[in-house]
Amino acid sequence: MRGNTFGKAFCIHTFGESHGGAVGVVIDGCPAGISINIDDIQKELDRRKPGQSEITTSRKEQDKIHILAGIEQNITLGTPILMLVYNEDANPKEYQNLAQVFRPSHADYTYFKKYGLKSISGGGRASARETLARVAAGAIAKQILQQTCNIQILAWVSQIWHIKSNVDINKVNPHDIEKNPVRCPDEIAAKCMQEAILHAKNEGNSLGGIITGLVRNVPAGLGEPVFDKLSADLGKAMLSINAVKGFEYGAGFDSVVFKGSELNDEFYTDEQGKIHTKTNHSGGIQGGISNGEPIIFRVAFKPTSTILMPQNTVDMQGKETEIQVKGRHDPCVLPRAVPIVEAMTALVLADHYLRNKLIRL
Amino acid sequence: MRGNTFGKAFCIHTFGESHGGAVGVVIDGCPAGISINIDDIQKELDRRKPGQSEITTSRKEQDKIHILAGIEQNITLGTPILMLVYNEDANPKEYQNLAQVFRPSHADYTYFKKYGLKSISGGGRASARETLARVAAGAIAKQILQQTCNIQILAWVSQIWHIKSNVDINKVNPHDIEKNPVRCPDEIAAKCMQEAILHAKNEGNSLGGIITGLVRNVPAGLGEPVFDKLSADLGKAMLSINAVKGFEYGAGFDSVVFKGSELNDEFYTDEQGKIHTKTNHSGGIQGGISNGEPIIFRVAFKPTSTILMPQNTVDMQGKETEIQVKGRHDPCVLPRAVPIVEAMTALVLADHYLRNKLIRL
Amino acid sequence: MRGNTFGKAFCIHTFGESHGGAVGVVIDGCPAGISINIDDIQKELDRRKPGQSEITTSRKEQDKIHILAGIEQNITLGTPILMLVYNEDANPKEYQNLAQVFRPSHADYTYFKKYGLKSISGGGRASARETLARVAAGAIAKQILQQTCNIQILAWVSQIWHIKSNVDINKVNPHDIEKNPVRCPDEIAAKCMQEAILHAKNEGNSLGGIITGLVRNVPAGLGEPVFDKLSADLGKAMLSINAVKGFEYGAGFDSVVFKGSELNDEFYTDEQGKIHTKTNHSGGIQGGISNGEPIIFRVAFKPTSTILMPQNTVDMQGKETEIQVKGRHDPCVLPRAVPIVEAMTALVLADHYLRNKLIRL
Amino acid sequence: MRGNTFGKAFCIHTFGESHGGAVGVVIDGCPAGISINIDDIQKELDRRKPGQSEITTSRKEQDKIHILAGIEQNITLGTPILMLVYNEDANPKEYQNLAQVFRPSHADYTYFKKYGLKSISGGGRASARETLARVAAGAIAKQILQQTCNIQILAWVSQIWHIKSNVDINKVNPHDIEKNPVRCPDEIAAKCMQEAILHAKNEGNSLGGIITGLVRNVPAGLGEPVFDKLSADLGKAMLSINAVKGFEYGAGFDSVVFKGSELNDEFYTDEQGKIHTKTNHSGGIQGGISNGEPIIFRVAFKPTSTILMPQNTVDMQGKETEIQVKGRHDPCVLPRAVPIVEAMTALVLADHYLRNKLIRL
Repeated sequence: MRGNTFGKAFCIHTFGESHGGAVGVVIDGCPAGISINIDDIQKELDRRKPGQSEITTSRKEQDKIHILAGIEQNITLGTPILMLVYNEDANPKEYQNLAQVFRPSHADYTYFKKYGLKSISGGGRASARETLARVAAGAIAKQILQQTCNIQILAWVSQIWHIKSNVDINKVNPHDIEKNPVRCPDEIAAKCMQEAILHAKNEGNSLGGIITGLVRNVPAGLGEPVFDKLSADLGKAMLSINAVKGFEYGAGFDSVVFKGSELNDEFYTDEQGKIHTKTNHSGGIQGGISNGEPIIFRVAFKPTSTILMPQNTVDMQGKETEIQVKGRHDPCVLPRAVPIVEAMTALVLADHYLRNKLIRL
Repeated sequence: MRGNTFGKAFCIHTFGESHGGAVGVVIDGCPAGISINIDDIQKELDRRKPGQSEITTSRKEQDKIHILAGIEQNITLGTPILMLVYNEDANPKEYQNLAQVFRPSHADYTYFKKYGLKSISGGGRASARETLARVAAGAIAKQILQQTCNIQILAWVSQIWHIKSNVDINKVNPHDIEKNPVRCPDEIAAKCMQEAILHAKNEGNSLGGIITGLVRNVPAGLGEPVFDKLSADLGKAMLSINAVKGFEYGAGFDSVVFKGSELNDEFYTDEQGKIHTKTNHSGGIQGGISNGEPIIFRVAFKPTSTILMPQNTVDMQGKETEIQVKGRHDPCVLPRAVPIVEAMTALVLADHYLRNKLIRL
Repeated sequence: MRGNTFGKAFCIHTFGESHGGAVGVVIDGCPAGISINIDDIQKELDRRKPGQSEITTSRKEQDKIHILAGIEQNITLGTPILMLVYNEDANPKEYQNLAQVFRPSHADYTYFKKYGLKSISGGGRASARETLARVAAGAIAKQILQQTCNIQILAWVSQIWHIKSNVDINKVNPHDIEKNPVRCPDEIAAKCMQEAILHAKNEGNSLGGIITGLVRNVPAGLGEPVFDKLSADLGKAMLSINAVKGFEYGAGFDSVVFKGSELNDEFYTDEQGKIHTKTNHSGGIQGGISNGEPIIFRVAFKPTSTILMPQNTVDMQGKETEIQVKGRHDPCVLPRAVPIVEAMTALVLADHYLRNKLIRL
Repeated sequence: MRGNTFGKAFCIHTFGESHGGAVGVVIDGCPAGISINIDDIQKELDRRKPGQSEITTSRKEQDKIHILAGIEQNITLGTPILMLVYNEDANPKEYQNLAQVFRPSHADYTYFKKYGLKSISGGGRASARETLARVAAGAIAKQILQQTCNIQILAWVSQIWHIKSNVDINKVNPHDIEKNPVRCPDEIAAKCMQEAILHAKNEGNSLGGIITGLVRNVPAGLGEPVFDKLSADLGKAMLSINAVKGFEYGAGFDSVVFKGSELNDEFYTDEQGKIHTKTNHSGGIQGGISNGEPIIFRVAFKPTSTILMPQNTVDMQGKETEIQVKGRHDPCVLPRAVPIVEAMTALVLADHYLRNKLIRL
């Protein structure tokens, strides 16, 4: 009934406050006998961790993954996998001056209204730190998808603030994404984005943008009518990430200005006798089910609400006051959100891959 | 494991093929002792039913609701509520020429790849007819929300094709929405939209557009960290509706071009001592939890894939061919989708309203 | 959250009051493409239906099954299957004199305490009529199990009141069970049981007893550690049937007086190289997982609480009074409960059969 | 889909192998703002832990509980509670000689058939060590039930092998249960039981028995028709404990030899105007819902399958062989199972207590 569980067949339960003992995940539903590369899990966490470059928060966490159950000698046992990261650089004192006032557009106020209490330390479950559990679980989902179907999941920053990139969907690859700290494979755009982020950082401000997701080699048939459409589950997955304000797939919001005759993806058969569509306005999903074409979607992130400039707000007693956050924060969450988008994509696909095994005897 | 269930506390299970015996829903989780107005359920179904105007499909269905369990003398028993509508005007023969070929951008191909069979009649669960189950269940959810919190849920067509409307969020009301067949409260825009739809209908084509949703009087505190954020569940709800390609709430995709200092919603206290935000870029949801301000979101619908113009495609054997659909279809699904968007909103809110009762003892 | 759903992969949702419009079930999770014999579903319902002999209630219901979704031309579509039976012989007036008083050991009092209301008609969901939904769903589960693994599920009345039967587990078969109205394959015992039931009926009293369940050809490996042990799910299934007071499997309660060395089932290998156990005190389940030996269990039913003799009780205001039930009731529910026990067994096994497909890739 | 989750509103997810890094639990669904006594959790674990007396295994584990999330300054946050115990005295070498052969009546064979692999260390999730997660979670459930309704949950050993005890249900209390290592409040019987257990231990054998459970101060109305009857959920909870072979409540299996007129519990009104039953053959549960009388049930445990005497068996290749287990094992699991029975009872009741909050608005 709480919202800490994601997935039905490949099911994860996450836990952990930003300033408690640990943050982590139980994966329940991972099949038995799968070979897992632990280093690859750590690598994904390293892509997400704070302090990796000058455009991210300076909070220092090793974010070293500990696997305490479900995997023995790098083989999954078919039992729940417990992975966690201990909190090391927690500094609740940094947050003491925030204890009584609500940061604008942050979760402070709504959490207080919901739970009737305010955790003395920082953001609790609303912290971006929660997302490392998703990345760890997603890293295992990625390995399963790679081993079974050679599915490749990519995400990159396609826009920061007003700066848009130009990326060839057919050629984009992990190497190009990772070669700059912004994780935008268009190098010129990436430079401008980095400049903009540093500028925002210097003024204590924040920037938003768009992350594009791409999945190759998806088998046709994934997704469940009628509520658990693949598009609906991907949308929920993305909208569950902090700061996300919108999701679209295929032609997305642009599709509204086309007519059906312009937007429909006509089928054809290629030389190997495989059915394809000439265009991919569907973004790889038709009727909520994958059609075998690449899945493409876009996720809008608002500028993070935690800024270092003074803002008007109220305190827990409703008294109007001014707040000036200190702490260590990201001026732009998107570069670190790329592995999170990939992880959530992997979780959705692994879940539907397993669920699909039950459709026919 | 199948995707026919929606909600965790106010939980619905839908069933029914477009051309089978009936389409309907079991609501499990409706509290006991609630007074239900059956006429209001029928009214919502009438808003969704085919044949209501010249801009909708001419398929004739009375869509009369039958309640066979869970309600006695208009009072809920706390047991499962079974509501169904018998299929009357089913005409599988219309679909016979479609049996062997895949309609472009429709669910034909993906359903076939998933299930390994093609229902001899029409679209099966992919049919828009499935949505009447949502509307019936949503009508009950609406009544609960209205009775408990005076929550008001509205949706309207805000854009069709290139034609945008101009609607004052503070003044929009059900009467203005219902006074034209497009369900756009901007009368001038509505006229243009109607023209455009009729034009598309005449050429056998289809149009898409945007539906805006608005919820007033939402109590603060609804929504569950971390995956079942209210925004994530609303997004999933909308993306589970046929033809939806995108979802955004509050400032949505536009938020990416603002800085944090421009977008944050500062808090203030009104004369009654109630905390509000000066702006509502958050769209009523912060950290995934309602903050008491109106919830605002936008849903992008592509032009429906079923058009009457000839299209290239392939058949079940992969042979390339041409298809020309006959049947009776909507040139634009948005006017009939308005009650569906409202229903899905009501289902999400009723579910979170109940779930929230478990947060504190 | 309500308890009307059973199963996780082969999942059923039941609905219906005893005296409302219909009683039935939605099966969600039945694989696509399975051939279903509708007559066999009806046959199971006929085994459960009232009025089949002089030892059952005289309430007359045709209990004709209607399948309104999910099956087309006797083939499952992979979509939700809706099956229902309309209530025909409902006679709420019979129950009017009961409206204000609580029948001892019946669900009247507890339902009233739970829901705060009392359905004007009869027993609502507490009625035995609810079980026809289980039998209909179980009939489909049986067909799947039969088609995939040749699993055979049997149950019979092994004891009524003080009268015990003597049945050879290795030889018992459906024909012997069905050849008398008690459904006890020991003919002599059956005669005595019938006598006892008629005697109880004449004095307006009721009798309980034991039903034994047996499953042959179960593949090894069904059941999920740690909570969803096959034995735990079978136990829950049986204890969810009205009037059941106890469940045991294998050596059951008797096992407590043996030592480990006496009770352990030693393994051996048969001529075909297949591993078996020499004894079957485990009842086919070890560590909560099927081991390939026959599953054996016993279910204790109390004498049904509805008797026609005068009893002391209280009314809704707490005033002490006397009650004398009229209505039409079974003096002994066991003969009609045999197909229910089989159905619940089939539902548990079909569910675990499907779930097991997710253990290995 | 795996069976590691228990409960719907007060929901637990357990994890951990006997010889991996840790064993523990995530509680999801614990309300916010509840004061938790950590010492009381540890005390429950100490009642379960090995090595507490000469009649239990000599495996030494501190079983110190670590709470890493969800509780801050002894107050629940409403977020997932992570509790775990690190494995300290794991000794996989002890189990090496078992790696290739199946222990009779143990889970070795069925786990191998299910997962297709055999964990190199000991029993994995089939180990009794898994139950400490239940006890830790149950300790929190107990505190909630105590604080909200003053519910008292007791269990005790009522029979070991042929030795039955004589306990007054109305007078039994925690102190009497804890004053001997057998946890049987009948002191004379306890002495005999202890003798019998030591005797079995000396011959390398094992004994079973019965644990009785009792719950006082249960409010009427807990339990959900029709599948999640309180009796069905309690039964499943108990049958999910290792070595349990049977469950009965109230008059249980004995009820079959009574007539309805003898077994029905007549209602009366006490001096305070509260409705009660004169007898309690229902064991506090009618129609699957608590009626406010004490809940009483009995759980049958077989003698544990791990004995130190030589036994015939087969190895992984199906070759017949003899096995002689060494290791450290309990000659009788019942004394240590008492807190497990209590914990599972508390989990069921806390779950239904919360679920019941959703019945009426």
